[in-house]
Amino acid sequence: MNYRGSAKKLLESSGISIGDLILIEKDDVNYQGMVLDRSADADDQHIVLKMDSGYNIGVNISNSNLKLLEKGEKPKLDLKPLVIKEDPDKKDISIISTGGTVASIIDYKTGAVHPAFTAEDLLITNPELLDMANIKGKAICNILSENMKPEYWVKSARSIYDEINEGAYGVVVAHGTDTMHYTAAALSFMLETPVPIVITGAQRSSDRPSSDAFLNLLNSVGAAKSDLAEVTVCMHAGSDDTYCYLHRGTKVRKMHTSRRDTFRSINTTPLARMKEGEIEIITSGKGYKSRGTVELKLNDYLEPDVAFIKSFPGITGEIIDYHLDKGYKGIVLEGTGLGHCPDQLIPSLERAADYQVPVVMTSQCMYGKVNMNVYSTGRRLIKAGVISGGDMLGETAYVKLSWALGHCEKLEEVKKIMETNIAGEIEEKSSLDYFLQ
Amino acid sequence: MNYRGSAKKLLESSGISIGDLILIEKDDVNYQGMVLDRSADADDQHIVLKMDSGYNIGVNISNSNLKLLEKGEKPKLDLKPLVIKEDPDKKDISIISTGGTVASIIDYKTGAVHPAFTAEDLLITNPELLDMANIKGKAICNILSENMKPEYWVKSARSIYDEINEGAYGVVVAHGTDTMHYTAAALSFMLETPVPIVITGAQRSSDRPSSDAFLNLLNSVGAAKSDLAEVTVCMHAGSDDTYCYLHRGTKVRKMHTSRRDTFRSINTTPLARMKEGEIEIITSGKGYKSRGTVELKLNDYLEPDVAFIKSFPGITGEIIDYHLDKGYKGIVLEGTGLGHCPDQLIPSLERAADYQVPVVMTSQCMYGKVNMNVYSTGRRLIKAGVISGGDMLGETAYVKLSWALGHCEKLEEVKKIMETNIAGEIEEKSSLDYFLQ
Repeated sequence: MNYRGSAKKLLESSGISIGDLILIEKDDVNYQGMVLDRSADADDQHIVLKMDSGYNIGVNISNSNLKLLEKGEKPKLDLKPLVIKEDPDKKDISIISTGGTVASIIDYKTGAVHPAFTAEDLLITNPELLDMANIKGKAICNILSENMKPEYWVKSARSIYDEINEGAYGVVVAHGTDTMHYTAAALSFMLETPVPIVITGAQRSSDRPSSDAFLNLLNSVGAAKSDLAEVTVCMHAGSDDTYCYLHRGTKVRKMHTSRRDTFRSINTTPLARMKEGEIEIITSGKGYKSRGTVELKLNDYLEPDVAFIKSFPGITGEIIDYHLDKGYKGIVLEGTGLGHCPDQLIPSLERAADYQVPVVMTSQCMYGKVNMNVYSTGRRLIKAGVISGGDMLGETAYVKLSWALGHCEKLEEVKKIMETNIAGEIEEKSSLDYFLQ
Repeated sequence: MNYRGSAKKLLESSGISIGDLILIEKDDVNYQGMVLDRSADADDQHIVLKMDSGYNIGVNISNSNLKLLEKGEKPKLDLKPLVIKEDPDKKDISIISTGGTVASIIDYKTGAVHPAFTAEDLLITNPELLDMANIKGKAICNILSENMKPEYWVKSARSIYDEINEGAYGVVVAHGTDTMHYTAAALSFMLETPVPIVITGAQRSSDRPSSDAFLNLLNSVGAAKSDLAEVTVCMHAGSDDTYCYLHRGTKVRKMHTSRRDTFRSINTTPLARMKEGEIEIITSGKGYKSRGTVELKLNDYLEPDVAFIKSFPGITGEIIDYHLDKGYKGIVLEGTGLGHCPDQLIPSLERAADYQVPVVMTSQCMYGKVNMNVYSTGRRLIKAGVISGGDMLGETAYVKLSWALGHCEKLEEVKKIMETNIAGEIEEKSSLDYFLQ
């Protein structure tokens, strides 16, 4: 370690090593966190802690008292590969890892979190999963989800397709949380599935005391064994560790930067509650697709040149023109209120219609649905050919437009697909009640 | 009216006119709404209703039974101007109207809502306000707020400044709801105020039975008379008509396309509850600015060339380059999770830093705060010079960056302003508890 001088002495005299969870009492304030290493050229007057909030802080050691709360364990990367025995009484579940916090470890030198685990490492860290099913792990990439791209959605869909074709009773996808809902929507459109496809992740890495990785994985394997044969997201339901929600892949969104219950169904309820690996359906009569009711099918062509543009008071039509000039094939606008944007964009939106480029309107309110019939501004947008996104999330509309453009050419066909419910993304009986839940 | 033949006969025999609230019983379904006129070339088999949801529907009249629920009144546009007598015992409150639904009427021909009222018309429709204060009305523009522009923010700020200078005890701004929170943030930065500045609006126009205009206006006038001398938004707190919330202008957002309680404080609590025009402070010890504690000051220069860009999985660096090439002076990114965007944007973000163009990171999660220290992606962004938006809303960061660039030139100064709390936009002690409230 790089600690030296007074800081090193203090740590050693308290029996504290890097990675340990400690409490520093100083004046009237207590600091609790995991001890990180310092850079080689740092002074000897500070100890660096990773707080549970994710922040790193440097605490000056003068007048401070250190208490060891819990010895930290370094990630068990040096463990031997597991020997997995198949149990004929258990279901075959495939875990496909794409990376993300659920498959990450902390770098004790900088305090930053890096994607590092493979699907097998996931099992080594969470061996209890092997009691629930015969688990087959496969890593198809190893990235934080902010770097997910449409081409990786396609790769993921094809891997899942192969796993199901080869007999998987259900599939779990380990994924970063940042863009998990975009991937969930993409898989929802690309795959017609006779078995559950459950996407999960974590807000805190497995080696942190407050990690949500295990509960999310456990419940995801439970969901993969259930009757609910849709693409879903399985994440913490509340801030405690009691249960998870299973959200429909096209109606879910990351709503908080750091809370573990960050994923929320928007304009609908979650499909189910998952507790200790057991499912409780809570669709309140809206229904869901049962295991085995459709044939496995892959529709994986996506148009990559689709833009997702936020409307704001200072926006000009030039940004629409830029995308048209660059040859973009579709645009999703995140408008204001019921689905509006400034009148000054209309000439450029009319130009998009002339170019046969579909423009889909969604709302940055997120809750509620687009209705361009109420105000004069909206009526002008309809006249300019803008397609309503209904109660679809902007993120889902962006993914769906990429998919629709991959499957048909004519503007009228694309418009029809966008306005038709394909994978639960449009709630036919949308209710005002589903607000901030 | 354009109804003819069977439809006209049915309406007349039921004593129903355009604008009336009626119930159509047909087969097993009931349709309730306001009767709209039809277009001149329409058939005689349908009656068009404006539903409470805002939707217009055409109901086929065969096998249907009509019931008049409530006679509609056309907007009283033909009333004579009010003669307003000053009462020395009452406070002087100025209402500045910019347009929006609160100042709109329905077009009975098309069912669309148009901005139509002036500030004086607001008083004619809501004469009870005159019992609360000596009210002076002024219309500075008449637009739906999706057409608000930074230049109108400046115009509004100057008008408010003049009203306060001329002795207004408080100011109410009537505004459309679509971009109300952008304007609220802009006024928060542009005005240091010794009196309350309260922005309000409506989700349903005054001539609709479910209008929220009156309650919002009544409580806004109450708030303008109170001790809370900040820029606030006053809108319905719940879906009933009992009270309103007073939200800090920099921490509020429209969260539902159509609900009347659409405005929500994000990452904090509302400042106060307003009931029957009376204020109840609920800041739970966080404090607020009292009347008279600062001198009136106007800081109204805004840089117009600021972009607000949403990150998404298929985004490329070209969109950043486009804005740099066009001479944009600042960029606010709406990143994912803790404040990330794909690594492929980094070369363009580094170019922005070379051009001395500030790039501010916010999160599309909306709840929680940006922390680019946790993951390797975030650390690369910090290294590329990206400024953290903290727990600021993306909308507020966009407005603040326009304001900061209007008030200083050097990148380092702009960075410092963006990271410093100016008008309550950065919550020093941000709590995880303020989620979906």
